[in-house]
Amino acid sequence: MKIQSVKGTRDFYPPQMAVRNFIIDGWKAASKRCGFVEYDGPIFEYLQMYQIKSGQEIVEQLFNFQDRGGRLLAIRPEITPTLARMVNQQINTLPRPVKWFSVPRLCRAERPQKGRLREFFQWNIDIIGADDVLADAEIVYCSLDYLRSAGLTEKDVVARISSRRLLAALLKNIGIAEDRLDVLYPILDKKSKVPAEAFEEMLQKEVSSGQIIRTIQQLMEVHLVDAIPSIVNLNNEAQAALDEVARVFAYLDRMGVRDFCRFDMGIVRGLAYYTGMVFEIHEVAGELRAICGGGRYDNLLSDFGGPKITATGMGMGDCVLEILLRQKGLLKDDTLDVQTLDYFVVCADAELFDKAVSVAAVLRRKGFSCDFSYKPVALGKQLKQADALKAAQCVIVGQELKESNQLVIKDMKSGEQKLVNADAFLT
Amino acid sequence: MKIQSVKGTRDFYPPQMAVRNFIIDGWKAASKRCGFVEYDGPIFEYLQMYQIKSGQEIVEQLFNFQDRGGRLLAIRPEITPTLARMVNQQINTLPRPVKWFSVPRLCRAERPQKGRLREFFQWNIDIIGADDVLADAEIVYCSLDYLRSAGLTEKDVVARISSRRLLAALLKNIGIAEDRLDVLYPILDKKSKVPAEAFEEMLQKEVSSGQIIRTIQQLMEVHLVDAIPSIVNLNNEAQAALDEVARVFAYLDRMGVRDFCRFDMGIVRGLAYYTGMVFEIHEVAGELRAICGGGRYDNLLSDFGGPKITATGMGMGDCVLEILLRQKGLLKDDTLDVQTLDYFVVCADAELFDKAVSVAAVLRRKGFSCDFSYKPVALGKQLKQADALKAAQCVIVGQELKESNQLVIKDMKSGEQKLVNADAFLT
Repeated sequence: MKIQSVKGTRDFYPPQMAVRNFIIDGWKAASKRCGFVEYDGPIFEYLQMYQIKSGQEIVEQLFNFQDRGGRLLAIRPEITPTLARMVNQQINTLPRPVKWFSVPRLCRAERPQKGRLREFFQWNIDIIGADDVLADAEIVYCSLDYLRSAGLTEKDVVARISSRRLLAALLKNIGIAEDRLDVLYPILDKKSKVPAEAFEEMLQKEVSSGQIIRTIQQLMEVHLVDAIPSIVNLNNEAQAALDEVARVFAYLDRMGVRDFCRFDMGIVRGLAYYTGMVFEIHEVAGELRAICGGGRYDNLLSDFGGPKITATGMGMGDCVLEILLRQKGLLKDDTLDVQTLDYFVVCADAELFDKAVSVAAVLRRKGFSCDFSYKPVALGKQLKQADALKAAQCVIVGQELKESNQLVIKDMKSGEQKLVNADAFLT
Repeated sequence: MKIQSVKGTRDFYPPQMAVRNFIIDGWKAASKRCGFVEYDGPIFEYLQMYQIKSGQEIVEQLFNFQDRGGRLLAIRPEITPTLARMVNQQINTLPRPVKWFSVPRLCRAERPQKGRLREFFQWNIDIIGADDVLADAEIVYCSLDYLRSAGLTEKDVVARISSRRLLAALLKNIGIAEDRLDVLYPILDKKSKVPAEAFEEMLQKEVSSGQIIRTIQQLMEVHLVDAIPSIVNLNNEAQAALDEVARVFAYLDRMGVRDFCRFDMGIVRGLAYYTGMVFEIHEVAGELRAICGGGRYDNLLSDFGGPKITATGMGMGDCVLEILLRQKGLLKDDTLDVQTLDYFVVCADAELFDKAVSVAAVLRRKGFSCDFSYKPVALGKQLKQADALKAAQCVIVGQELKESNQLVIKDMKSGEQKLVNADAFLT
């Protein structure tokens, strides 16, 4: 019976696995450089956990199921709820700030699109228990640190940064009631994703004053912190929020990544739960979805039954990133080593086959990666196999062993051969 | 709202994550030493794929669900069906033998027990397209290579090896009909897991002749290849199978792991699909479940709609292994580094806080792992934090920077301090 894979999932054959490892190794290295430590949770959790942060509508995007005990469970679509649960469980013993990273496998029951699959990997970094915007700057820095280490420059990617706190203050400043904010965020977040007319139409449904709508439209276009006071007459709350944004940029300057960063009031993020700095990193040309996004969400732990402790974090999926790295020539299948070997043992004399088997075992015991042909096929065929497996050197077990207890070591790059004493080489 | 994790799953806090990485890194290293290359598949597949190899009863042990298109899916309980599907899809282009490894996350909807959880990790190695028992010996060797690298000796673990081909030949030899074999295998596999009377009762239900039952019981106790001819008068088929087993042991001898290995007719493996060598590695004392198991299953690819190409492989879970490594003192929480840092930047003068932030960024840019306190707290508190994060060195940004453009480098092990020129150190 022939069976296919499920659409929206990926098979990681060795070349694709090498790409996945290349990306994940880069994420892990950047996390460790910036002082984050790795954690992970289960692949499934109670379904209701995902409704706390994202509401009832998330259920449609989940692969959910019942276990035999009738428990409603779901494959994780994100790891943040797990993070909140885990940190809450140990909040009294964990040293703060908690700086954790993870590279979870996640699933969403969506229709697959370019850069958005039903199963993917996502790098997450979070700082819990650090109130100052310095922690927000650290999150942006670490995201950029990885992208820079992958070879991307400020000509390739831009971190668009705004503040939910600032946006809330400005909206209230111009007359939006506090309890209307959560309705507006998902609409404002759509601004760059829908045509201008559609955006205006959505706004008109929620905001009755044409003047306020025009002011909102103006605000959404702002790319300079200094331009805001000319649009809105700032109250103290808005001024404090604006000063905070300025401090984020000052830190990013100290950290040497200011050139990657741009203030952009158009960055809103859909979810209600952000409370401070928000950001997304995009390809400069802007043709791809966001490479990553995140921000401050100070109510996360308390939403999950924990104490009021602040948090800020970021998530970066592997799908858009891989497309981008390929477009920029920073990831090519033929430059990644799918497999390498220190040694390939070649048997040049069928009588010595058993000896070749033990030579390979001894080299492995010494810690080298080593392989050999399972059949004493022709010498040329074995050397070809060694080449295909990218062996650095071949150890040829042949008549030299019988005659003078010697092995031939062939360097596969230079083609040079040398004779070595078998006992010395294998000890 | 307070939510718990689902029973039978694990939270990997940083210390547990370090253990998981320690185990998985060891598996990966052994795989690479032996010339295996990594692959992976999706976390869920079509439900029916798991019924092909394991029958209808497997469905009860699966977490299964429907997607919105009504497709019946399941979280993978093993990766072998995925392996078969993937290899079949590329069978005409993959160079043979295919030597692949994977460390999949797997789930089983079982009642959690000691060493058996509902979510776990399993090391898999498989060789496809190598007919000779040398490939079987390689599988056993690689399994032992990992266990030996983890510090286990032949006093700790034993590889119990038998042959399904030999067992089949012997059973037919003593009068069991070929079509009765698949019924007997799961019963024979129970021998060491149930009391002797229960085992005999199970046999009596399937085998009418008391004489044959006694012979089967005798065979199950055999630990020497040479002892078999005294129990059964071997026909050609059985003799050939016996010779093959002897060759497996001869190879394991050449590979230097013979002392770990024991012939044991009691090793049957429950699944019908094994066709040749079968083995399990157990703790010598025998109190734990098998550490790993595997064998030859030459019909795997054809069962999944592919060609008749031979295969042999092994699976090792992380749960029993972790218990064993802890029992033997080879895995202790306090010997694993949960986190280390190259540098911790200490700010000894609040005026220089911004400078400390940029020093940390520069060190990270140079590739070092580096962290710092997000608040300019007291010097002693910062040094304590550096210690907790296992920083190798501290960089103290203080008055020396103002006075003479120097930084203090403090070695955290020896306590020694030295002054360095800031520009030279940060370039």
